[in-house]
Amino acid sequence: MGNCAQGCKDYWCRPKNTNVRVSLPAVCFVWQTAMIILFGVFIRYDEESDTHWVEYRKENNISSDIENDFYFRYPSFQDVHVMIFVGFGFLMTFLKRYSFGGVGFNFLIASFGIQWALLMQGWFHALNPETGKITIGVESLINADFCVAGCLIAYGACLGKVSPVQLMVLTLFGVTLFAVEEYIILDLIHAKDAGGSMVIHTFGGYYGLAISWVLYRPNLHQSKRLNGSVYQSDVFAMIGTLFLWMFWPSFNSAITDHGDGQHRAAINTYLALASTVLTTYAISSLSAKRGKLDMVHIQNATLAGGVAMGTAAEFMIQPYGSLIVGFCTGILSTFGYLVLSPFMEKTLKIQDTCGVHNLHAMPGVIGGVVGAITAAAATVDVYSKEGLINTFDFEDEFVNRTVGTQGGHQAAGLCVSIVFGIGGGALVGLVLRLPIWGDPADDNCFDDEVYWELPEDEESIPPILEYNNHMITKNPDMSESNFSVEQS
Amino acid sequence: MGNCAQGCKDYWCRPKNTNVRVSLPAVCFVWQTAMIILFGVFIRYDEESDTHWVEYRKENNISSDIENDFYFRYPSFQDVHVMIFVGFGFLMTFLKRYSFGGVGFNFLIASFGIQWALLMQGWFHALNPETGKITIGVESLINADFCVAGCLIAYGACLGKVSPVQLMVLTLFGVTLFAVEEYIILDLIHAKDAGGSMVIHTFGGYYGLAISWVLYRPNLHQSKRLNGSVYQSDVFAMIGTLFLWMFWPSFNSAITDHGDGQHRAAINTYLALASTVLTTYAISSLSAKRGKLDMVHIQNATLAGGVAMGTAAEFMIQPYGSLIVGFCTGILSTFGYLVLSPFMEKTLKIQDTCGVHNLHAMPGVIGGVVGAITAAAATVDVYSKEGLINTFDFEDEFVNRTVGTQGGHQAAGLCVSIVFGIGGGALVGLVLRLPIWGDPADDNCFDDEVYWELPEDEESIPPILEYNNHMITKNPDMSESNFSVEQS
Amino acid sequence: MGNCAQGCKDYWCRPKNTNVRVSLPAVCFVWQTAMIILFGVFIRYDEESDTHWVEYRKENNISSDIENDFYFRYPSFQDVHVMIFVGFGFLMTFLKRYSFGGVGFNFLIASFGIQWALLMQGWFHALNPETGKITIGVESLINADFCVAGCLIAYGACLGKVSPVQLMVLTLFGVTLFAVEEYIILDLIHAKDAGGSMVIHTFGGYYGLAISWVLYRPNLHQSKRLNGSVYQSDVFAMIGTLFLWMFWPSFNSAITDHGDGQHRAAINTYLALASTVLTTYAISSLSAKRGKLDMVHIQNATLAGGVAMGTAAEFMIQPYGSLIVGFCTGILSTFGYLVLSPFMEKTLKIQDTCGVHNLHAMPGVIGGVVGAITAAAATVDVYSKEGLINTFDFEDEFVNRTVGTQGGHQAAGLCVSIVFGIGGGALVGLVLRLPIWGDPADDNCFDDEVYWELPEDEESIPPILEYNNHMITKNPDMSESNFSVEQS
Repeated sequence: MGNCAQGCKDYWCRPKNTNVRVSLPAVCFVWQTAMIILFGVFIRYDEESDTHWVEYRKENNISSDIENDFYFRYPSFQDVHVMIFVGFGFLMTFLKRYSFGGVGFNFLIASFGIQWALLMQGWFHALNPETGKITIGVESLINADFCVAGCLIAYGACLGKVSPVQLMVLTLFGVTLFAVEEYIILDLIHAKDAGGSMVIHTFGGYYGLAISWVLYRPNLHQSKRLNGSVYQSDVFAMIGTLFLWMFWPSFNSAITDHGDGQHRAAINTYLALASTVLTTYAISSLSAKRGKLDMVHIQNATLAGGVAMGTAAEFMIQPYGSLIVGFCTGILSTFGYLVLSPFMEKTLKIQDTCGVHNLHAMPGVIGGVVGAITAAAATVDVYSKEGLINTFDFEDEFVNRTVGTQGGHQAAGLCVSIVFGIGGGALVGLVLRLPIWGDPADDNCFDDEVYWELPEDEESIPPILEYNNHMITKNPDMSESNFSVEQS
Repeated sequence: MGNCAQGCKDYWCRPKNTNVRVSLPAVCFVWQTAMIILFGVFIRYDEESDTHWVEYRKENNISSDIENDFYFRYPSFQDVHVMIFVGFGFLMTFLKRYSFGGVGFNFLIASFGIQWALLMQGWFHALNPETGKITIGVESLINADFCVAGCLIAYGACLGKVSPVQLMVLTLFGVTLFAVEEYIILDLIHAKDAGGSMVIHTFGGYYGLAISWVLYRPNLHQSKRLNGSVYQSDVFAMIGTLFLWMFWPSFNSAITDHGDGQHRAAINTYLALASTVLTTYAISSLSAKRGKLDMVHIQNATLAGGVAMGTAAEFMIQPYGSLIVGFCTGILSTFGYLVLSPFMEKTLKIQDTCGVHNLHAMPGVIGGVVGAITAAAATVDVYSKEGLINTFDFEDEFVNRTVGTQGGHQAAGLCVSIVFGIGGGALVGLVLRLPIWGDPADDNCFDDEVYWELPEDEESIPPILEYNNHMITKNPDMSESNFSVEQS
Repeated sequence: MGNCAQGCKDYWCRPKNTNVRVSLPAVCFVWQTAMIILFGVFIRYDEESDTHWVEYRKENNISSDIENDFYFRYPSFQDVHVMIFVGFGFLMTFLKRYSFGGVGFNFLIASFGIQWALLMQGWFHALNPETGKITIGVESLINADFCVAGCLIAYGACLGKVSPVQLMVLTLFGVTLFAVEEYIILDLIHAKDAGGSMVIHTFGGYYGLAISWVLYRPNLHQSKRLNGSVYQSDVFAMIGTLFLWMFWPSFNSAITDHGDGQHRAAINTYLALASTVLTTYAISSLSAKRGKLDMVHIQNATLAGGVAMGTAAEFMIQPYGSLIVGFCTGILSTFGYLVLSPFMEKTLKIQDTCGVHNLHAMPGVIGGVVGAITAAAATVDVYSKEGLINTFDFEDEFVNRTVGTQGGHQAAGLCVSIVFGIGGGALVGLVLRLPIWGDPADDNCFDDEVYWELPEDEESIPPILEYNNHMITKNPDMSESNFSVEQS
C-alpha cells in the first residue's frame, strides 16, 4: 500500500518529459482516421451544395442561383474563418518566445476541431432520422468555426503551459461539451444567441479558466522571464486584434436571419466595438503613470464589446443601446486586466495567460445578461408582430412564448453555459493532469524551444555594422557567437 | 502689458508636458458619452435593417431577402473596414519605434471618427424632417469609414509629432469639415466622386499638410535618429500597403450603383493599381545607385493609382484609360517622394512624415481632374442614354445638365475640397498649437516611449547562443544587461 | 575562332553585375506602355460591367441587379486577390534577409502578370470575332489572378537567386505558356480543373523547377548563411500561409458553377485542408528528435490539400473523399520536404528554395489524378442526370462524352500541363542564363542588399538598456557601433 502510494507519487512527480514524438503523431493519425470513417458513415452535402440543387430549385420555385444560402453567408463565413485562424492565432503571438506555439497550435487544434464539430453539431442538429445522414452546407461550416472558437478561447488561458497533445484533448472534449450545451441552450431552452456570448464566449472562457485552475503551477514564476512581450511580438499580436475587431460584425451576423437580421447584427456589433475602443483607451491611460497606454489592454479589451454584443446582436437594441453595451464592457474588461487578473492569479490560483476571463468570460456573461434584458423588454411596437416572431423564432412549440418568458429562458441559457464551462473544464483539467501528455516543466513554459525546431538566432545575420566598426568583428569560425571582442 | 506678454510667452514656451493621464481619458469618456446621447436622440435603423423589413419587402414587391442592400454592399464594406484599420494602421508602422502609435492611435481615432461621422453625415444626408431621425444601414457604415479615411490621411502627415489628444481633436474637426465639404460637393454641386479622390484624398491630404505646416517644428532634426525604418518595420508596413492595394477596388466600388456600376468601378481600379506598380518600381530603380529599390516608394506610390481612379471609377473610362491613369500617377507620386517632399520640408516648412502629399493630395487632384475631363467627354454613344442618366444621376433638378456642365462642376468640386483642406487644416492647426495637448518635445518625436508602456527590450530574451559559447555569458543577476564580457 | 570562343567565354563568365538601373526601368516602362496600347486596341467592358447593362437586363429578363455576375464572384475574387499578393508574398518572406524581395518582387510581377494575362487569356477565350475585342468582367480578373499564380509558384523555386528583370521575363513567358496550355486543357481536351491543380499548380511547379534546374548554381553554398529563416521571418511567413489556407476554398470555388458548384467546391476544399494540417503536424513531429515541429512543414505542407483538391473541387467527391485527399497529400508533401528536396538538390541539381515541388508540383499531380479517377467514377445516381451535364459541361460538341472518356481526358490534361511546365521552363531557363539580366553572384544570393536600399540596422535603435547598465554604453559619436565595451 505504501509502495503503491510511493509508486503513484513517483509516477505523478517524475521529471517532465516533453517528448511528443510518439504521442502527437499518434493522436493526429488516429483521430484523423476516425474522422474519415465517421464522415464516410454520416456526412453528405445538403440540398444546396449537392448537384441535385438544380432540381431542388425547380421544385421549390427558387428563381435564381443567387438565393442559394452560399451567397447569403459565404462572405461572413470567410470573415469568421479569418478570425479563427489569423485572429485568434496572431492574438496569441504576443509572447516573446511563443509565437510559433501561439499561431501554430491554434492552427492545429482548430483544424481538428472543425471536423469534430461538424460531426458533433450534426448529430445534435442535422441528423436526418430516415437516412441516418448529416447534411452540411455553408452554415454548418460557420457553426463548426464557432464551436472551435470556444476551444481556442480556452487555449488562451493555458497558452504556453500545455503540450500540443493536451491541446488536442482539450479540443476533443471542448467540442463535445460545446455541442451538448449548445443543444440545451438553443434547442431545448430555445434561447437566442446569434454571436454566441453564452454558448461560445462564456462557455469557452470558463472552460479554459477551470482547466487552468486544475493545472495550477505554483512555480510558474520560474518561467517569468519569458512570460511577456517584446516590441515586435506586440505588433504581431495587433494583426490578430484588428482582424478579430474588424470582422466581429460578420461573426455576430453570420448565422442570423437573412435580410434585416444579418444587417442589424452587423450594425450593432460595429457600433459596440467602436465604443469599446474609446473606453478601453481611457481606462488604460488613466491607470498608468503619465497616462501611458498598455498594449495588453489595447490588444484585448477593445474586443470585449463584440463579445458582449453577441446575444443581443440581432435584437432591436437600437444603435445607442449598442454604444452603451460597448462603453460599459470596455471599462469592465480593462479593469479586469488591471485588477481581476492579478487577484485571480494570487488568490484563486488561476493563471490566465491571455486574460480570457476579461476578454471572453466576463463580457460573455454581460452579453448574456444584456440579451435576457433586451429580450424581456421587446415590444410589438418596436419589432412589429411579424418581426417579433422572426427574431425570437416564436414558432411551432414556442408559438405561445412571451417576451418575458423568453428573457427568463435567456438567463437560464447563461447559467447552463457557465455550469458546462466550469464543470467541464474541471473534469477535463483532471484528465490533462495525467503525466503522459508531455507538458513542459515550470521553468520551461512559454518557450517555443520545447516543441519547435527554432531557427538560429537572428543575431547571426552578418551585421551591416561589421564592415564599419573595427571594435566588433564577426568571427566566421564561431557561427554561434555574435560578437567577439578584441582585447587589448 | 509687458508682464502679460511675458506671461503669455512663458505659457506658450514652457517645456512640453506629455502627460495625458487626465486629458486623454477625459476626452474619450466625455466624447463617447456625447455620442451615446446623440445616437439616442437621432439614430435609428433604416428600413432594410429594421425588423419591419418583412413588411417593407411585401409593400415594395421585393422578391427576396437577397435584394437587401446588405448583400450588395457588405463584402465591400468589410474590405473597406480592413483598409481603414489594418491598411492605414499598418502602413504607419514603418517607423522603427512608432509602430504602437502608428497602428494604435489609428485604431483610436478611427473608432471615434466613425461614430461622429454617422451623426455628421446623417444630419446632412439622411435626416428625416418628419421624425427628426437619421436612419442608418450598411451604406452609412461605408460612408462613415470613408469619412474617417480623410482624418487618417491627415494623421499620416503628423505621424510621430502629435499626441493622441491632438489626434482626437484633429478627428473631431476633420470629420465635421468633411461632412460639410462632402455635402457641398456631392449634393449642392452634384459632382460625382465614387472613390473620393476629391472629398477624401484631396481634402484629407491638404488638411494634414496644412496642420503639419502650422505645427512646423524647426528642431525636428533632434529626433532624426528615430525618423526612419528598420528591416522588420518595413515588412510590417507592407501588410498595410498590400491590404490597401488589394482592397482598393472595393473602396472605389463600395457605394457606386448596383450592378454595372460596382462591377466597372472594381475593374477600373484593379487595372489602374496594377499599372501604377510598374511605373513606381521603374522610377524608384531609376533614381538610385545601382538601381536599388526604395521601400518608401513601394509602400506608398504603388497606391497612388487607386487614389487617382477614385472620381472616375464608375465612368466608362475604358480599361486602357485606367491603365494610363495608373501609369502617370505612379511616376508622379514616386517623383513626389524623390523631389517634392524634401522641397516641401526645406522651403515650404511642411514636415510630412508619411508623404501624404505624394500619396493622397496630389493623386487626389489628378483624380479630380481625370474625373472632370472624362465626365465632360462622356457621350450617349458610349454610355447609352439610360447609362448616362444612371452614371451621372441626371435626375430631378439635374435632369437638364449636360456632360460639359458636369465636367465644370466636377472641377468646381475639386476646388472646394482643396479650399476646405487647406483652410480647415490651417484653423485646426492653430487650435492644436495650444500648449495643452501633451504633444512631444522636438527631441522626443517618433518615439512610442512617450505614450506607451513599452515591453522590455528584445535583447533580454536569453539568447540561444549562451549555451554554446563561453565567450559570451548571460549574467542572471543583471537582467538589464545582455552581454557581459569575460575579461582576461 | 579561338578568339571568338574566348570572347564568348569571357562574356558568359564575367563577374556578375547586379546593376539593374537601366534594365529594370526599361522593362517596366516599355512593357507597361505595350499593355496600354494593346488594351486600347483589344479590351473593353463586358455586358455586365458596361453601362448598357440596364438594357441587357431588360432584354434578358434578368429580374434584379443582384444577378450580375459581380455578386456571385466578387467576394471570391477578393479572397483570391489576397492569396496572390499577401498569401504568396508573405509566404516568401521566410528568409532572414530576403523579405523585401519576397514580398516586393511578388508584388511587381503579379501586377504585370495580371495585365498580360487579361490579354493572353482574352485572345484565347473571349475574343469576339466580329468586333475583334476582348470583353472583361469579374471572372476575367479572377482568371488573370489564377494565371499569375503559376508564375508566382515558379518564383518560389527561384527565390533569392534571380534578379527582378529575370522575374519579369519569367512572368512574360510564364503567362504566355499558361494561356496556351490552359486553352489546350480546358477547351480542346475539355478537362475540368476548377481550382487549377493541373493548369496552375502542376504547370507552375514544373515550370519553376525546370528553370531552377537550368539555372543550377554549383556554388550556392557560398550564400548558405542567408538561406534560412529567423524567428520573426517565420512568423511573417505564417501570415502568408494562413491567408492562403483560409482563402483556398474561395480559390477553388471562384470560377465554378453558380449555386451548388461554388458551394460544394468550398466545402470540399475546407475539409481537405483541415485534414492536411493534422497529417502534416504528425509527420513533422515524427521526423524530428523529441517530436519537435518544423516551421518549414507547417508553412507549406499544410497547404498541399488545397492544391490536391483543385481539380475535383466541384465534383461529388463527398466530404470523406475530401478528407482522404487531404490526409494523403499532407503526408506526401511533408515527406517531400524531408526526403525529396535534399535528394533533388543533391542528385538532380535542382535548387528549389521554397520547395515548390512538394507544395505545388506533386500535390498538383495528385490533384490531377484524383480528378481523373473521380470523373471516371461519376454516376447518374450520385449526380443526377442534369447534375452530371452541369458539372462536366457535357454540352454542344461534348454532349456524347461519357464519364469514362472524361476521366481519360482529365489524365491527358495532366500530361499536357507537365509537358508545358518542364519544356517551357527549360526553354525559359536558357533565356534567363543570358548574362544580361543582373542576377546575383553565388555568394550574394538570398540578400536584399543587392536590389534594395536597406534601412540602417535595427541595432542602432538606442537601446533602453543603456540607461540602466554601465557595462554597456552607447557611444553617440559612433553611430554605426552598437556596443563598445569598457575595458579595464
